[in-house]
Amino acid sequence: MEVPVLLQNIFQYIDKNEQVYIQCLTEAVKIPSVSGIPNYREDVFRMVYWMEEKLKVLGVITEVCDIGTQVISTTENNSTKIALAPVLLGQLGNDPKKKTILVYGHLDVQPAAKEDGWDTEPFKLIQKNGKLYGRGASDDKGPCIAWLNAVEAYQKLNHEIPVNIKFIFEGMEECGSVGLEGFLKKRSDFLESVNCVCISDARWLGTKTPCLIYGLRGTCYFSIEIECASKDLHSGTFGGSVFEAMSDLVFLLDSLVDSSGKILVPDILEDVLPTTCEELKTYENIDFCVKEFKKAVGCEQLLHEDKIKILTNTWRYPSLSIHGIEGAFSDHGSKTVIPKKVIGKFSIRIVPNQDPEKIAKLVIDYLDKKWKTRKSPNNYKTSLTFSSKPWLSSVSHYNYTAAIKATEFAYNRKPDMIRIGGSIPVTLTFQEIMDKNVLVLPIGAGDDNAHSQNEKINIANLIQGTKLLAAYIFEISCVKEH
Amino acid sequence: MEVPVLLQNIFQYIDKNEQVYIQCLTEAVKIPSVSGIPNYREDVFRMVYWMEEKLKVLGVITEVCDIGTQVISTTENNSTKIALAPVLLGQLGNDPKKKTILVYGHLDVQPAAKEDGWDTEPFKLIQKNGKLYGRGASDDKGPCIAWLNAVEAYQKLNHEIPVNIKFIFEGMEECGSVGLEGFLKKRSDFLESVNCVCISDARWLGTKTPCLIYGLRGTCYFSIEIECASKDLHSGTFGGSVFEAMSDLVFLLDSLVDSSGKILVPDILEDVLPTTCEELKTYENIDFCVKEFKKAVGCEQLLHEDKIKILTNTWRYPSLSIHGIEGAFSDHGSKTVIPKKVIGKFSIRIVPNQDPEKIAKLVIDYLDKKWKTRKSPNNYKTSLTFSSKPWLSSVSHYNYTAAIKATEFAYNRKPDMIRIGGSIPVTLTFQEIMDKNVLVLPIGAGDDNAHSQNEKINIANLIQGTKLLAAYIFEISCVKEH
Repeated sequence: MEVPVLLQNIFQYIDKNEQVYIQCLTEAVKIPSVSGIPNYREDVFRMVYWMEEKLKVLGVITEVCDIGTQVISTTENNSTKIALAPVLLGQLGNDPKKKTILVYGHLDVQPAAKEDGWDTEPFKLIQKNGKLYGRGASDDKGPCIAWLNAVEAYQKLNHEIPVNIKFIFEGMEECGSVGLEGFLKKRSDFLESVNCVCISDARWLGTKTPCLIYGLRGTCYFSIEIECASKDLHSGTFGGSVFEAMSDLVFLLDSLVDSSGKILVPDILEDVLPTTCEELKTYENIDFCVKEFKKAVGCEQLLHEDKIKILTNTWRYPSLSIHGIEGAFSDHGSKTVIPKKVIGKFSIRIVPNQDPEKIAKLVIDYLDKKWKTRKSPNNYKTSLTFSSKPWLSSVSHYNYTAAIKATEFAYNRKPDMIRIGGSIPVTLTFQEIMDKNVLVLPIGAGDDNAHSQNEKINIANLIQGTKLLAAYIFEISCVKEH
Repeated sequence: MEVPVLLQNIFQYIDKNEQVYIQCLTEAVKIPSVSGIPNYREDVFRMVYWMEEKLKVLGVITEVCDIGTQVISTTENNSTKIALAPVLLGQLGNDPKKKTILVYGHLDVQPAAKEDGWDTEPFKLIQKNGKLYGRGASDDKGPCIAWLNAVEAYQKLNHEIPVNIKFIFEGMEECGSVGLEGFLKKRSDFLESVNCVCISDARWLGTKTPCLIYGLRGTCYFSIEIECASKDLHSGTFGGSVFEAMSDLVFLLDSLVDSSGKILVPDILEDVLPTTCEELKTYENIDFCVKEFKKAVGCEQLLHEDKIKILTNTWRYPSLSIHGIEGAFSDHGSKTVIPKKVIGKFSIRIVPNQDPEKIAKLVIDYLDKKWKTRKSPNNYKTSLTFSSKPWLSSVSHYNYTAAIKATEFAYNRKPDMIRIGGSIPVTLTFQEIMDKNVLVLPIGAGDDNAHSQNEKINIANLIQGTKLLAAYIFEISCVKEH
């Protein structure tokens, strides 16, 4: 496939500017914008303002929008209010003759610490063997910066940008995009002229084939709080006289899922859309290597060792994971404590057509019932911490057609059309609020370790991804609306 | 009971020096000598050297003894060796006409952090309403310093100290006194001339009546390690395809104890000495208030609400507590992670005549068997982290007679003769190695929050405790050996 001359020039410019892009990502990774731990909230703010400055340099009209506060329960059994990270809006171009695309990315990251087992400092970008290691390198600071690069390439070569671009960068994605939906509903003025949406997040399925994503799982994140005493107790002095919160909690956590991964909450699969033969057939040609997947996990045996089964169980069926316990002893070493209050945390990935509220009710009712059988006098409460809906897009829309062609320009191959098992809560939000087609266009590779130790982005992915976005802008301007 | 004039003078001196004693404890609490977390090991060393200086000022001949190294597994699945905190030996007087007592205390403390729910900085001594708050104030820096005070009082008033005193201060007590037993066996020269032993640790049962302790429970501390992946995984991408270590772990932890506190490991009670009617009768007169105990716990219902049952279940029967999980998500907030490796930690308090090795075998065999039924392909291992034996002393020995009389001098009342549910591993070590009577002589009150948030010692207990030790020295020199 022949690449148009304009894009050829842009691609050359992008190749030449690799070091500039790496320097920019270095700055971004340095800011530990962890949204899930309230102590880092100021850094998320800093990250938003950093991005605003970068957009301004490109001539983007920006607006940093306060989206309200969040009630968080503190460790001492009290709750307090803190500001949500603001949303950064940007507008580049306002030509009624051009299509307007909405670009979404997030500036917050998952928690990370050297002690978790990182080989390098997580908030320092380290280059090694063609890879850039650092928290947020792939999820999602790299892709956000690729947008800056793509726009800059057009500008520096004096090519008119063939579409109007609206940007929405948020800072609460890793906590389920708290506050964003309400904000977007209020700011329908900003969304009005948008023709289609491009979500720059997520990663390819494997490490070689670029992908377009048309489906995501949602999430219901729960916490079980149990309190047995007004303070932590010495297990020597008090062991044998206290109904211990920890044993109550492991009893409840153990009632959630069996060893085969089956969720034990009754009726949990009721609304799951059945898979069709036609659908499963499309999975067959997808570039997905079980061996590589297994290597990425680093285990001896998976729940399912068959390609189609792995794909359906991570894309099309719900799964339950227990993440951890707050309030219990978690350090290295040994401590003979009876923790006064423990909070178990788990989540269920939900799929079309499961409804978060219905799932939450099923789970909470089930645990409340289990709790009654325990006959413990302790204080107990299960609650839904946050949720997001599952999402499915229409792949016949020109938004996807443009992205397919752009992939062919940047990678000289067609992308795989895939779903992923994770959640990007805004996909459905955009689709529901605006009734416009939403595309998820990933840049990073499947082995980028998002949410894990040693997160990275390949330099090649950052560069080709920048080209992909430049080509996508170009193609969107060419394809006919339908 | 009339207090001898010499003691009256000493008691007056002690009353006058309250502020000096508080200042000394302030210095000691400032050193975060946490033995259970390897990162603090240097501080334990610092604490030992601090105490050596204090002893030298009193003319004590000191020796800081290296007791070897400890293999610790680091979070990255490797293990490393670090030095054990040294043992501090001291000798004051060497008069063959006098009796020689051996005084034991420990200079290390339990972990503590403001975030755990302390009202004040744990490593800063804060005076409030006649109480001194700070980690180690009662367990066990206050009692160690009371010995310095008692000796100094004799010296400053030019009274000859009527006994030879040997000191052993260790820095690994909160980890089960690792390395101490082996060290003491090698240094039998130091122990040779000792007539009886006084352990300065533990606390009263309640808040009003001084106690002598003649029995302790031992401990078997276990860890269950389960590993499911080579790195932490994103629960969206991998949930539904992985045998998750956390669900395996809660399954095993849930098999340990039921809601009534009953340990589910078969034959676990086999060797427990039965309680006699005579023994239970002595419990009746003990100053123990169920209501106060319940208030100290801060719960609505205890496993047993009857005084005798509470005492037997915390003194005379084993109990199992689950302390926490290392490697899982434990922070405030939410993280959608599948932890790669989790380590569950629990311990069983054991009683006469349970043997730690036998208990460890029963528990590990039981969990290994449970694990087989789980049919999980993950890496699994249960191991005994450390253990200590239970202990019973002979209360008819002059060591106890002297302590009873000393209590009457210092408090104008007889002490309660009690057991406690906690472990002080060295009690049995001393008894076994030296074949001499061992007394546990507590100074702190039952509500001192040892091992918990807001640990404190009452100023009154520090002062009267210092008097008690001064009187104990005096009485030991008076009573006849038998």
